Amino acid sequence: MIPNLPSAAVLGARAFAALQGLNRFTDEPGKLTRLYLSPAHRQAAEWTKGAMEVAGLSAFIDAAGSVQGRRDGPVPGGPCVIIGSHIDTVKDGGRFDGNLGVVAGILAAQALRDAGIVLPFALEVVAFGDEENVRFPTHLSTSAALAGHYDPDWLDGRDAEGTRLADALVAFGGDPSGIAALARKPGSVKAYLEVHIEQGPVLEVEGEAVGIVTAINAQRRARVRVTGEAGHAGTVPMPLRKDALTASAEMALALESIAAGHEQAVGTVGTFRVDPGAANVVPGAVEFTVDIRSPSNETLASLDLAIRSRFGEIAARRGVSLDIAFYTNALAVPMDPGLQEALAVGAARAGGNLAARRLPSGAAHDAMAMASLCPSAMLFVRNEKGVSHSPLENMTEADAGTAIRVLLEAIVELARRED
Amino acid sequence: MIPNLPSAAVLGARAFAALQGLNRFTDEPGKLTRLYLSPAHRQAAEWTKGAMEVAGLSAFIDAAGSVQGRRDGPVPGGPCVIIGSHIDTVKDGGRFDGNLGVVAGILAAQALRDAGIVLPFALEVVAFGDEENVRFPTHLSTSAALAGHYDPDWLDGRDAEGTRLADALVAFGGDPSGIAALARKPGSVKAYLEVHIEQGPVLEVEGEAVGIVTAINAQRRARVRVTGEAGHAGTVPMPLRKDALTASAEMALALESIAAGHEQAVGTVGTFRVDPGAANVVPGAVEFTVDIRSPSNETLASLDLAIRSRFGEIAARRGVSLDIAFYTNALAVPMDPGLQEALAVGAARAGGNLAARRLPSGAAHDAMAMASLCPSAMLFVRNEKGVSHSPLENMTEADAGTAIRVLLEAIVELARRED
Repeated sequence: MIPNLPSAAVLGARAFAALQGLNRFTDEPGKLTRLYLSPAHRQAAEWTKGAMEVAGLSAFIDAAGSVQGRRDGPVPGGPCVIIGSHIDTVKDGGRFDGNLGVVAGILAAQALRDAGIVLPFALEVVAFGDEENVRFPTHLSTSAALAGHYDPDWLDGRDAEGTRLADALVAFGGDPSGIAALARKPGSVKAYLEVHIEQGPVLEVEGEAVGIVTAINAQRRARVRVTGEAGHAGTVPMPLRKDALTASAEMALALESIAAGHEQAVGTVGTFRVDPGAANVVPGAVEFTVDIRSPSNETLASLDLAIRSRFGEIAARRGVSLDIAFYTNALAVPMDPGLQEALAVGAARAGGNLAARRLPSGAAHDAMAMASLCPSAMLFVRNEKGVSHSPLENMTEADAGTAIRVLLEAIVELARRED
Repeated sequence: MIPNLPSAAVLGARAFAALQGLNRFTDEPGKLTRLYLSPAHRQAAEWTKGAMEVAGLSAFIDAAGSVQGRRDGPVPGGPCVIIGSHIDTVKDGGRFDGNLGVVAGILAAQALRDAGIVLPFALEVVAFGDEENVRFPTHLSTSAALAGHYDPDWLDGRDAEGTRLADALVAFGGDPSGIAALARKPGSVKAYLEVHIEQGPVLEVEGEAVGIVTAINAQRRARVRVTGEAGHAGTVPMPLRKDALTASAEMALALESIAAGHEQAVGTVGTFRVDPGAANVVPGAVEFTVDIRSPSNETLASLDLAIRSRFGEIAARRGVSLDIAFYTNALAVPMDPGLQEALAVGAARAGGNLAARRLPSGAAHDAMAMASLCPSAMLFVRNEKGVSHSPLENMTEADAGTAIRVLLEAIVELARRED
């Protein structure tokens, strides 16, 4: 415990007050909708810049629309630790997803200054703008810009209204030609830390305020098409049917049981389209999606094999044909072990008997992009109902404060390691 | 065998030639689409009237749009046997569904006249016009008119273009005010016989040209709603999920197995709507339809009970909520045993070692409406692929001829019974 740092209770109250300020900015009154490069995003970015300045950081809105704030360490322009998250949201999203992590960074910077703690590295806070990838066909584009792997094709992507990303960026006040220069030099960033609300129920179920992310899960997605034989629901006897729906139902249950049999793996059939889809017709074809994730690439590969084999066996037994087309294959992104340990030390020092529970992240985060540039780690905060991407997303003020306190202690731990 | 009757081969050739004539009339060039009261229906009705007249029947198009042909027996205006089926089709339907039965009746009347066979009853052929119930919200309205239970509300029903049935009927040349008078007096119809292509694969699989229908199946339909908890496909661990899709999948498989466990019963999940239906979201709710049919009302009731019980058990185990709303409950319509026997005698006399296989009808037919007026029976003809309501529907000329020959022998058998 560092005596001069504010208590978790104070930090929680500050965080909720700050979130109330930031979350005034929405593209849809009555909901929290703040899409990348929208008017609400611009307003939120201005607010964030102001909050960073009040916290003692030099701040600017960068060429890609992220807000960057920095307080130099002993060597001007020297290596930094970045605390980041995002201020864009999904449509009708929650108040904490991204926003909490940005506020946590700002409040941490403020608290360190106020406590008179001098860090041996620069401290930066970054509010990324394109984490949800809802408006344009991008993938973590603003953090990819810092990490140095921005895909220029993204600039030609269009939103639902047909607006090109490049044009939206110029209208926002950004600069497509300046994006390449945002890439940080390898070695210039010592660590990236991100506080984020958990997007599932694990911490809630286990009664833990915070958890340390071990890896961002590997993920594969497939479109599956099962083709049987359509028939009259009244006239084709059960033994003569080649029902694409019951075949697909059996596959969905097989996926569920395969995923449940591998620790920390998940498997989901999220869509299910029946052809022809009439009450009196035995379904002739079904298309459904499979989404499988695991913190381990090996586990995911074995899930993939098991699915192909079980689905194939079901299709053969039922006399239906099967087409599985995988269209996403993202490897797992492990979080840095040293930074995980710093967060664990922070949790131990923060008091409150935190277990520093380790858990994988099933969702993508800016830390995924940043991990290609520098050691990265994430601290998850308990989600009251486990609900994400919904106005029902919630957390307690106490948990928010605890998370920021753990973050502060972890930054101090990183400073200690420099000595 | 009655020597003067044409052979099955001759009858088959005549039937296929007649069908070629009748099936020129379609509302959609290149497809066979002949909806109730459409221009193509009017043309087909005129053709049918002409064909009846050539076969020696007095014919007219009635107030509801059916074509009625009659040859009196010894007593003018006396009791009759009706051979019927329908000349309306579904959109892009098959060539035999309904049309074959009408042609069979006309060819039978013609063959009996040509063979000099004098029947002790009047012989009628009726070409109903609204069996498919595709254009208006009706149910077997034209045969219901003869049976005396036409629902006047049907006249106010509208098609997809907003046209009222009553207006379409007037435009067709019919007469809404004349429908009530179409009702036949109880006792005035001795029998209703209908030849129809099987709408499933049973005869094809068993290698039988024709089959005798035992009953038109009882049917119940339900809408089922399963409500679980939507969640992020990456972040909600398998044991914490309340996945509405896998719960519904298990119910679909339970239905399949329950139906398969009852002889001649069928059970179908034909529609399946997932909410929210995104690849990366654990489904929070699913709505699907259940269609169950059986020739036995008792079997259907026990299927219904088994479904409620199994679905309830699945929902309870998975922590999802379940709502089952039955919206159709049609009792079985048994076919007349004496007429079934007459068809069996006809099959035995027709030659060709016909097994006269008995089978239920899973689909509705005009015989269902007529059965409330008079003893009714149906003869199914083998469907080459078991495919119905599709241009792929097919049968052989030989099977068509066999069916008409059996029909002829059955009519003669009914005549013999009068002696």
